[in-house]
Amino acid sequence: MRLSNYLLPTTKDISSEAKLMSHKLMLKSGMIKQSSSGVYSWLPLGLNVLNKLANLIRVELNKINCHEIVLPSLQLLSIWEKSGRAVEDSDMKSQIFHIKDQKQTAYVLPPSGEEAVAELFKSSVHSYKDVSKILYQITWKFRDEIRPRHGVMRAKEFLMKDAYSFDVNKEKALISYEKIFKAYLEVFKKIGLRVIPVLAPTGAMGGNYSHEFHVLSDKNGESTIYYQEELNNYLKDDEFSLKGYEKFYAKEEEKHVVDDCKTLKIIKSKSIEVGHLFYLGTKYSKSLNCTYQDSNGELQFPEMGCYGIGVTRLIAAIIESCHDDKGIIWPDAISPFKLAIINIKAEDSVCREFSDKLYANLSGKYDVLYDDTNKSPGKKFADMDLIGINLEIIIGPKHAANKKVELK
Amino acid sequence: MRLSNYLLPTTKDISSEAKLMSHKLMLKSGMIKQSSSGVYSWLPLGLNVLNKLANLIRVELNKINCHEIVLPSLQLLSIWEKSGRAVEDSDMKSQIFHIKDQKQTAYVLPPSGEEAVAELFKSSVHSYKDVSKILYQITWKFRDEIRPRHGVMRAKEFLMKDAYSFDVNKEKALISYEKIFKAYLEVFKKIGLRVIPVLAPTGAMGGNYSHEFHVLSDKNGESTIYYQEELNNYLKDDEFSLKGYEKFYAKEEEKHVVDDCKTLKIIKSKSIEVGHLFYLGTKYSKSLNCTYQDSNGELQFPEMGCYGIGVTRLIAAIIESCHDDKGIIWPDAISPFKLAIINIKAEDSVCREFSDKLYANLSGKYDVLYDDTNKSPGKKFADMDLIGINLEIIIGPKHAANKKVELK
Repeated sequence: MRLSNYLLPTTKDISSEAKLMSHKLMLKSGMIKQSSSGVYSWLPLGLNVLNKLANLIRVELNKINCHEIVLPSLQLLSIWEKSGRAVEDSDMKSQIFHIKDQKQTAYVLPPSGEEAVAELFKSSVHSYKDVSKILYQITWKFRDEIRPRHGVMRAKEFLMKDAYSFDVNKEKALISYEKIFKAYLEVFKKIGLRVIPVLAPTGAMGGNYSHEFHVLSDKNGESTIYYQEELNNYLKDDEFSLKGYEKFYAKEEEKHVVDDCKTLKIIKSKSIEVGHLFYLGTKYSKSLNCTYQDSNGELQFPEMGCYGIGVTRLIAAIIESCHDDKGIIWPDAISPFKLAIINIKAEDSVCREFSDKLYANLSGKYDVLYDDTNKSPGKKFADMDLIGINLEIIIGPKHAANKKVELK
Repeated sequence: MRLSNYLLPTTKDISSEAKLMSHKLMLKSGMIKQSSSGVYSWLPLGLNVLNKLANLIRVELNKINCHEIVLPSLQLLSIWEKSGRAVEDSDMKSQIFHIKDQKQTAYVLPPSGEEAVAELFKSSVHSYKDVSKILYQITWKFRDEIRPRHGVMRAKEFLMKDAYSFDVNKEKALISYEKIFKAYLEVFKKIGLRVIPVLAPTGAMGGNYSHEFHVLSDKNGESTIYYQEELNNYLKDDEFSLKGYEKFYAKEEEKHVVDDCKTLKIIKSKSIEVGHLFYLGTKYSKSLNCTYQDSNGELQFPEMGCYGIGVTRLIAAIIESCHDDKGIIWPDAISPFKLAIINIKAEDSVCREFSDKLYANLSGKYDVLYDDTNKSPGKKFADMDLIGINLEIIIGPKHAANKKVELK
C-alpha cells in the first residue's frame, strides 16, 4: 500500500472524552472516526485489523464444524416479546433500539440473535437426525447505551461474533459448550493474549451456566475477577477439559464467595470481558415454540447454548494490553502490515527509484505499507510507531546510493 | 463439507408469493429463509455464494486503489436533512427508516452513504494533496419498501457495495468515474454475465451524469433498456474507454428518445439493474460543508462520484440468468462448491469407507460437499441439481468394491 494514496489520517487532535489508552490510540492512528456518540466509522487501517481478527475467529469456529449464517438486523419486535426480552420488566428492554416501517410493523435492531436463530431453526430443522448444529454470524449489533464510553469498548453499534448451538439433550449441549470453550482458548492463544475464563452470572440472557472470558487489565478493566493462581498453567494444558477447568476457582465478581476460596492462592484482577458462553437450556426454544420430532415422532424442544465474542471490543482490549508510550504494538496474527518501507527523502530520485523497486519486489509477497509521502522523517517514524508496524525498512539518500537499507 | 452436519434445508414447500424463478430457487435450495416481509436470513449455502461474490468485487476495486471502510448503520438524521434527502419533499423520504435512541437522538438506517462518507472525509482530509481517493464499503443497507417483492431482488435489508470518489475537479472526477466503469465491466466479465451499461436518469441521488449496469432478462426484467447492437462487441474491447462507449446508443427507458436512434439497429430488452454510477459534482460536499484547502490555502469542495452494486440483488439476477428446470447453474467464479461426492448408499460400509477416504483426499484441495446422509439416491441427485454443483462424483456399492466412481 502506497501511503500517498491510502486514507490514514493520523492525528494528535483527538476528543478530550478519550480517557482510555486504546480509545486514544485508535483515534490517533486513524483506525476509527467518531460519527456520533458511541457510533464509529472504521477506516482502512482499522478495518484491516478488524477483518484479520474476524477471520482468525472464523477459522477456529469452522474447524469445529460451526456454520456461518447472517440473521437480519430488522427483527420483528413480536419475537422479542415472545422471548420476554423486549417486555416492560426485562433488564434488556431499555437497551433495545425500536423501529417501525411505514406500515407500522414494529422491529428491533438486535443486540444478539437468540430469537431470530430459534425462528430460523424452527423453519429449517424438523427431525432429531438434523438437530445437532452450531450456527454463527459475525455481524454488526446494536445497543441503546445511555452512556456510551471508551470508544468501541462500549458502543451503540459493534461487531459481534455470536454462535448458537442446538442439541437434543443437556449432555450433548454441554459437549457443544465445551467445544466452543476450547475454540475460544485457541482463538486467544493465536492472538497471543492472556485470557482468563471465569464462572459468570447469566443475567438478562437466562440459563444457569455461563462463563466469561476476560483480558487482564490492571489499570483500566471495568470488571473484577478472582482466580486461582494454578489455573494459569492448566489453561495451557493440551489435555484441557471443562471438567478439569472446573476444579479450579475462577469467578467473576458477582459470583465470587470469599468463604469458598479462603485457603487457596487467589489472584484478584481488574479485567475486560471479551467473550461469553451461556448454556441456555430450552428457554428460547420453548418461548418461540421451536420444536423437532424425536425418534418416536414426539415434538421436543432443542437445548440451546449461545456464545459471543465482541470483535470490535476485543480490538480495544488487545490495544489496551499491547502498546507502549509511542503507540500500538500489534500481535503478529492481526498486524495490519507485515512490514513498512520508509523512504525518508521522497523527493530524491535515487531514493525514490530504489524504494519503488523494493516495494514492487516485496508487495507481491507481503502486506507492505510504503511511506512514499513528502512528510518529515520525524513524522514518518512517529506514525509507524503509532500504528504499530513491527518491521521497518528505512531508506535514505546515502543508503540508496549504496543499495543498502536500515532495519528497525 | 459433510452434508450430515451442514444446514441445507432444501424444500419444495415454499411461499406462493414467490413468482420469480430466482426467488423460488433461492428458497428451495435453502440459500435464504424469509424472516419477515422483505427481510431474509442468509443460510450457509447462500452466504457462501454471497461472500464469494463480494470478494470478487473487492478484488477488482482493490486493484484500482479503492480502499475499504465501514460507515455506521446508525446515521444522524441531521446529516440527511442537510443533504435534503430526508426532508418532506424528497423522493427518498418515505423509503428511509427512522429511529430514535432513549435520549431522543434521531437516526436514519441508511440506504446509501453519501452523507456519512462526506462527513468522514471532512474530518480526515484537509489538503488538496490528499483529496484524490476512492473509498468503498460492502455493508447491509436498508430501504422501507412499501411493497417488497421477488425475494432479495427488492428487499428491505440488502447487501450493497457502495463506493465514493473524491477529486479536486470535474476532469479528475470523470477519470475516477471511468476507472469504476471499467472495474464494473471486469467484475461482470469475471462472473461471466452479459451486462449492458446504459445512460440513466439521476433521480433522487442528484448530479447530472449516470450509468446503470443491466443484466438482460427478457422474461422477468423490471426495467427496459435500448441499446445499439454494435455495443455488444465494443464492450469486449480491451481498449475500452468511456469516450469510445459514448459513441454508441445505450439508454435506460426514461432517457430513451426514439428520434435519436431511428437510423440505428437498436435492441430493446427487459433487464435487471444491478449496478449504478453517478457523477455527483459538489452536491453532497457543499450541503455537508465538506472542504479541503487548495494550494493557495483557499477552501474548496471536492467533486464526488458514487458507485453501487446491489450484491444480494446481483445473486438473484445471476440465478435469473443461470438456471434450468432442475435448479441453479452457478458461474464457476462464485460456485459454492467445486465438486460434490455423493455416496448413494451411506449405510453400506464399503461405500462409506471409500467415500470417506475420497472426501479426506479431496477436501484439503477443493471446496467439496460430501453427501454422507441416508437420503434416497433420487433425493440426493435432485438436491445437487437444485443447488447447482457442476461436478458430481457418484459412489455406489458396485463402484466402491472396484474402487471406481461415476462422474456426472
